Amino acid sequence: MGKPILNFATDYMCGALPEVLDALVKTNLEATPGYGEDCYCKAAKELIRSLCNCPDAEVWLTSGGTQTNATVIDSVVRPGQGVIAATSSHINVHESGAVEAYGHKVLTLPETEGKISAADLELWLTDFYADETWQHMVEPGLVYITFPTEYGTTYSRHEVEAIHDVCQRFNKPLYIDGARLGYGLAASDDIQLSDLLNLCEVFYIGGTKQGTLFGEAVVARPGILHNFFTQTKRHGGLMAKGRLLGVQFLTLFENDLYLSASAKAVALAASLRANFIAAGYEPVGNSPTNQQFFRLPNALIDHLADIATFELWGARGSEYSVVRFVTSWATTADEVAQLSAAVADFAANAQTMK
Amino acid sequence: MGKPILNFATDYMCGALPEVLDALVKTNLEATPGYGEDCYCKAAKELIRSLCNCPDAEVWLTSGGTQTNATVIDSVVRPGQGVIAATSSHINVHESGAVEAYGHKVLTLPETEGKISAADLELWLTDFYADETWQHMVEPGLVYITFPTEYGTTYSRHEVEAIHDVCQRFNKPLYIDGARLGYGLAASDDIQLSDLLNLCEVFYIGGTKQGTLFGEAVVARPGILHNFFTQTKRHGGLMAKGRLLGVQFLTLFENDLYLSASAKAVALAASLRANFIAAGYEPVGNSPTNQQFFRLPNALIDHLADIATFELWGARGSEYSVVRFVTSWATTADEVAQLSAAVADFAANAQTMK
Amino acid sequence: MGKPILNFATDYMCGALPEVLDALVKTNLEATPGYGEDCYCKAAKELIRSLCNCPDAEVWLTSGGTQTNATVIDSVVRPGQGVIAATSSHINVHESGAVEAYGHKVLTLPETEGKISAADLELWLTDFYADETWQHMVEPGLVYITFPTEYGTTYSRHEVEAIHDVCQRFNKPLYIDGARLGYGLAASDDIQLSDLLNLCEVFYIGGTKQGTLFGEAVVARPGILHNFFTQTKRHGGLMAKGRLLGVQFLTLFENDLYLSASAKAVALAASLRANFIAAGYEPVGNSPTNQQFFRLPNALIDHLADIATFELWGARGSEYSVVRFVTSWATTADEVAQLSAAVADFAANAQTMK
Amino acid sequence: MGKPILNFATDYMCGALPEVLDALVKTNLEATPGYGEDCYCKAAKELIRSLCNCPDAEVWLTSGGTQTNATVIDSVVRPGQGVIAATSSHINVHESGAVEAYGHKVLTLPETEGKISAADLELWLTDFYADETWQHMVEPGLVYITFPTEYGTTYSRHEVEAIHDVCQRFNKPLYIDGARLGYGLAASDDIQLSDLLNLCEVFYIGGTKQGTLFGEAVVARPGILHNFFTQTKRHGGLMAKGRLLGVQFLTLFENDLYLSASAKAVALAASLRANFIAAGYEPVGNSPTNQQFFRLPNALIDHLADIATFELWGARGSEYSVVRFVTSWATTADEVAQLSAAVADFAANAQTMK
Repeated sequence: MGKPILNFATDYMCGALPEVLDALVKTNLEATPGYGEDCYCKAAKELIRSLCNCPDAEVWLTSGGTQTNATVIDSVVRPGQGVIAATSSHINVHESGAVEAYGHKVLTLPETEGKISAADLELWLTDFYADETWQHMVEPGLVYITFPTEYGTTYSRHEVEAIHDVCQRFNKPLYIDGARLGYGLAASDDIQLSDLLNLCEVFYIGGTKQGTLFGEAVVARPGILHNFFTQTKRHGGLMAKGRLLGVQFLTLFENDLYLSASAKAVALAASLRANFIAAGYEPVGNSPTNQQFFRLPNALIDHLADIATFELWGARGSEYSVVRFVTSWATTADEVAQLSAAVADFAANAQTMK
Repeated sequence: MGKPILNFATDYMCGALPEVLDALVKTNLEATPGYGEDCYCKAAKELIRSLCNCPDAEVWLTSGGTQTNATVIDSVVRPGQGVIAATSSHINVHESGAVEAYGHKVLTLPETEGKISAADLELWLTDFYADETWQHMVEPGLVYITFPTEYGTTYSRHEVEAIHDVCQRFNKPLYIDGARLGYGLAASDDIQLSDLLNLCEVFYIGGTKQGTLFGEAVVARPGILHNFFTQTKRHGGLMAKGRLLGVQFLTLFENDLYLSASAKAVALAASLRANFIAAGYEPVGNSPTNQQFFRLPNALIDHLADIATFELWGARGSEYSVVRFVTSWATTADEVAQLSAAVADFAANAQTMK
Repeated sequence: MGKPILNFATDYMCGALPEVLDALVKTNLEATPGYGEDCYCKAAKELIRSLCNCPDAEVWLTSGGTQTNATVIDSVVRPGQGVIAATSSHINVHESGAVEAYGHKVLTLPETEGKISAADLELWLTDFYADETWQHMVEPGLVYITFPTEYGTTYSRHEVEAIHDVCQRFNKPLYIDGARLGYGLAASDDIQLSDLLNLCEVFYIGGTKQGTLFGEAVVARPGILHNFFTQTKRHGGLMAKGRLLGVQFLTLFENDLYLSASAKAVALAASLRANFIAAGYEPVGNSPTNQQFFRLPNALIDHLADIATFELWGARGSEYSVVRFVTSWATTADEVAQLSAAVADFAANAQTMK
Repeated sequence: MGKPILNFATDYMCGALPEVLDALVKTNLEATPGYGEDCYCKAAKELIRSLCNCPDAEVWLTSGGTQTNATVIDSVVRPGQGVIAATSSHINVHESGAVEAYGHKVLTLPETEGKISAADLELWLTDFYADETWQHMVEPGLVYITFPTEYGTTYSRHEVEAIHDVCQRFNKPLYIDGARLGYGLAASDDIQLSDLLNLCEVFYIGGTKQGTLFGEAVVARPGILHNFFTQTKRHGGLMAKGRLLGVQFLTLFENDLYLSASAKAVALAASLRANFIAAGYEPVGNSPTNQQFFRLPNALIDHLADIATFELWGARGSEYSVVRFVTSWATTADEVAQLSAAVADFAANAQTMK
């Protein structure tokens, strides 16, 4: 058979949605001003403001997720303030200390499948300010959640509202990291892009994992971000050819491409999940989005590794291990069908051999 | 006539060299590992090592210039050490404090047309260590120069060797910012890419201004950079789809595209310079590269502003002002011809009217 | 009765040991060079080197504990590296992010009464480097423990050796925060100042809580600290009148004052502990040093609050709460006797009333 | 004769004013709460507020000058903003990058004898905001001056008002570093402590060079400083035994000791200056405060070095060199008389030998 051909390793393996790449090709030799001052960036920002239902929202197009998180946090909080986040959150674990590099400590909350709770947040904040020595500690200046989480799970509208309510009572802006926002919105039945700014003060719309070559879009209520342009430059994230971001995001949000591509990926993930379950395999966690986790026999894992890419999630067990399969805008129905067939065949054979 | 159509404002107005964009299109739907672990990055790095004549050089592909400077500096020097640079240097003026954000002070040297001298450097370092209180000051951990400079000028081989010699005596690595390296090499008769690592410890090959959509390539002698991968992530500059850099740099350095595109831009700049001089206008400075500066009558500036983009350099004078015209890989001979004709016409009319 | 008169709130309530203050008074009008270049600092450093049995140790006198921790960490690790420490450790909780201010993340380990274990440390480090994505995370550059801990407990020699052994296998220097080192040494039967540098690479001898007005002494194996003098200045911790530190530490270590004052405080704490137990009250934890924790009826706590200062440890319970009593070089046998008598009386009355 | 006995090297050679040390001795065994929550700190702050004629001023007692500068700057400006200061200013040259350590670039202005001018400041700020690329640069968030300067010079009231006026027009708080404030006030005929907060938004009253063992007092208009307590802790400058600062500053400002000790030192400096001039030697600069600079024959310098400490200012010349003599609260009339006599004798001999 040779190399694996079914790609489920992650959602940033391929380039860009064909429409997005096309737009880059078409505009390639146009000469525009740099640093986001071009017409494409302006149009993309305007379109995003409109879709977010907030005509005075501040919108910025940025180059990547870690960059965006560090810059947003540094633009919102005061020097030395920290940010509250789940223990497993990307900013706490997988950003090589990008937040701390600017002097902001990550203050961790316990979590369930990547989600923090309003109750834990309230308890933490109440205890913090009840401690007479709180001024010897790092004061939080922001609360950070991901939607969806590292484990593919989503908050319900009610859950986000409860968290936001605590944030407001303690006067802490809420920031939603939407690296995979589209997949989350496609899987949610009560949260829409159009009212996200009612649920938080600032969020970003992930592009990199959602069909652009790279790039994210930060959306904030007015007055939340300070000197964001300069901060982006200072953080090394300002693109000279800023219009590359404008062209991509404009294409992504025209004709509803963002949500339709996300919905397709989520539907394929749901199909994959159903097929694994039908074959008798146990899903791990409750992800309704494009990341699916299963506890599989090692023999099946080894078998699938010949035809597909995917990731071991944690250490390999003695008989069973947990693995992650990720769909994306680039996943095809055929890839899901082939993978599902391989799983069903293996299950059938296993049954026979008993 | 309407909008300006001749583009001389800067060298990052357009997308990418057609060959580079083509390579991105061809590889768009391939699935590769992220973060630079793909075959394109490996091949590009290997090719660059070979062209730099240093098989054990460390090569990293990074996302942009400011990012690269901050990450290189932070990877070379110890906490709190500074970097010596010309007063007008990009890191001192136009990076919004990205170097200081990581605690490294920029220690400035006087300059001539953007160039520092070995003599000034030696004097500075000698005085520094002669001062009994030097341990109360910021110790330099690196010397930074640009090739070519902000003013388009280039160092001769002899000049760089002299600077490097001082650096070595004081045990300070020399770092060359090559945001426009190709244009500099094309204009130089005694410095080649193949021996640049003999003249310094680390440099970067600019891509953004030289025909890629974005991206730079850092090249260092072994042992100079510490934890560069992690530092790139921490600085927010690690691209998820790292192969985009690999594909672009591989294309750029195959078939000598980098130098041929640079040489073309430099030849067009030389032609522009000659034509302005022939029309009776005074060049400012001695740039042999793709940036050309002229002192022009304001009337001519206003006239040209109707047909071309270019930048005022400093404040507008009462009768004359200095302006900058920049060519790039995207500039056409026709654009230079049209601009030159407009200048010649204006000069002729001005002559007639006297 | 009026105000409380028995002081058990903490060990930094009073000024300095009379001998120490006397030395400051005697030398007050001498004129010496600044910044630690004076004869007192030199003599103090030499004495400490000798007591630590390491003639080539690097010794620095610093102004305070948080300052010292941040400067040591920043002088040992590379930019962006982190430091492993117990969750409850001072650097993680009570230094307002001083470590993160310089870009170093605190990586937390679980603990028992403030102590980490060699096994947990080994597991953490093994898992870290086994994770394929470790270069996307913060790499530890140092391991930090306190002796004694925040809970007054001490490591046995065997425990520290086991931790140090793991550190050496993973090539991480071990740093011991000795804010209350004297109290720990006085309570330990197998760790002495004279061989501490065999158990770690760097530690500091606390002065502030041990009888100086302020000041700590950092002791390191050669080659561990980089640019410590300049780093101290950069961190804002270099004292102009550095000799104040020299005079104090010289006095503290002449005639064994440091250990004798510590031993007295520890003996008084042991006596207090015994008296509480004898009166029927339950100690919390196993501190053998100058901090003692008890679970007491709230009525007793309220009663004692009229005659003594001490701290509630955690939240007040409905019937019982945990409180901390701290002795110091300034505590008198009479204070302990009075407090113990009050406790015994209360217990006797409580018995009677049943 | 042996060692030098006349101390003019600097103003931080000796301990503390006897009254100040006495107060420390008297309060030594009192037990008070830590971190500045004690009655002495409260009284000292209240007294300072009253002397500054600003009942709602924010007053903080801090441990040293570099610490104070870094903390004030970090508490006033936003992340990434810079601070405008004279090229020779302490924060730019002699603080080992303490300001940059927190990400704030020092933006330098030209100077005359350490003083910047309102005109230069206005020009700089006007040019900065006129530059279309200013958002790519470091925006100043504060203007910093010293009173008196590194060269002992003082601003007139009119000069400070003019600078403050520019600051207000550009909405930049003005910060006065008063490491030697007392000497400056004693030498000024139109600036008083009681109206300093009308001339700037924040300043500090130096103690270390003015008669305390250590410590400075920050005074700010309400709303200027953010989270100063926590920032002090985070910067490593919070003293556990904060009352040491309170006791010292309370003593310093009771009975007008601060100004009387300063006035004495300034009078002795004036006398020294007059005596040098009378002996035929040329003063350098116009310092009216406790630092005096002279251009002396090297033979005289070598002669004086046998009986006095003082500093060479810059490099030694072939025949003449510039030296600095500093008086302080500890200088005696006798020391000045002896030094002056030695100078006069030398001059007389030199005359004779011609």
